[in-house]
Amino acid sequence: MLGIDPGTRVVGFGVVDLRGGAICHVVHGTVRAPRDEPLPARLATIRAGLEQVLRSQAPAVVVLEGLFYARNVKSVLTLAHARGVALEVAASFELPVMEYSPMELKRSLVGYGRATKLQVARMVQRLLGLADEPSPDAGDALALAICHLHADRLRSLRGAAMRRSR
Amino acid sequence: MLGIDPGTRVVGFGVVDLRGGAICHVVHGTVRAPRDEPLPARLATIRAGLEQVLRSQAPAVVVLEGLFYARNVKSVLTLAHARGVALEVAASFELPVMEYSPMELKRSLVGYGRATKLQVARMVQRLLGLADEPSPDAGDALALAICHLHADRLRSLRGAAMRRSR
Repeated sequence: MLGIDPGTRVVGFGVVDLRGGAICHVVHGTVRAPRDEPLPARLATIRAGLEQVLRSQAPAVVVLEGLFYARNVKSVLTLAHARGVALEVAASFELPVMEYSPMELKRSLVGYGRATKLQVARMVQRLLGLADEPSPDAGDALALAICHLHADRLRSLRGAAMRRSR
Repeated sequence: MLGIDPGTRVVGFGVVDLRGGAICHVVHGTVRAPRDEPLPARLATIRAGLEQVLRSQAPAVVVLEGLFYARNVKSVLTLAHARGVALEVAASFELPVMEYSPMELKRSLVGYGRATKLQVARMVQRLLGLADEPSPDAGDALALAICHLHADRLRSLRGAAMRRSR
């Protein structure tokens, strides 16, 4: 389960796994594109970095936040460029891409949809038993991966319950 | 000179060159992504297609339309994903990316900034001596390449005039 939090300067990523029914932290980090480089070069740096993560971690699923409509159209438009690159590189590895809204993400992690970024990062740290609080970008990426793991587990449980009740 | 007109279903491309002071048509076409595929898969198809064009045509410069803010935010946001992929693949070939606004493009090709898409396509056909009118997507891509060739030539002429006047 690889979560990606795309940006045009910093892209967060986080990998979690299910081992013996427990959520385990595998790795998290960021891909950073030099601030003074033009957008195309930054996007190429981001793709190369994500390609390396995908190659080394070989996740089964990639998880991103759904596209949301922020107030600042210009910054969302720039962000969509990086998001396009992240979706493309995931598909080039023939991986399914799952999307969760910021609201679903927060509700799944913290219990309510209006949780702050800090609350999410702290919950990620606690759930994974990390010594340090992850950076906001890597924290969001880990949160996405955890969120999908939860949703996936719920689906399996529901499936099993359905089979039992037949 | 490779012009690219990105879209999430159809990407137009067009290559023109300067030979003996004249603008020559090299090739134009489209990369098409199946309509029924999810966005990530379409973006991967688009990148693979553009990579092939870049590899076979080996252009010196890639030309795109600058990001514009249309009324329909949702469609521009989706478009920005494809634009991000086009910018990224150009930069991965270490090519400079030039941008022109739709207004500059029309002014350069047709003479005024409010020309219609049809007028642009017809001017492209006439300038390049094409037997058939190019498709709108490929036509826009060719127009971008021609626009940059014009701008480039003007810059050289200005440079030469400056040197003579010294």
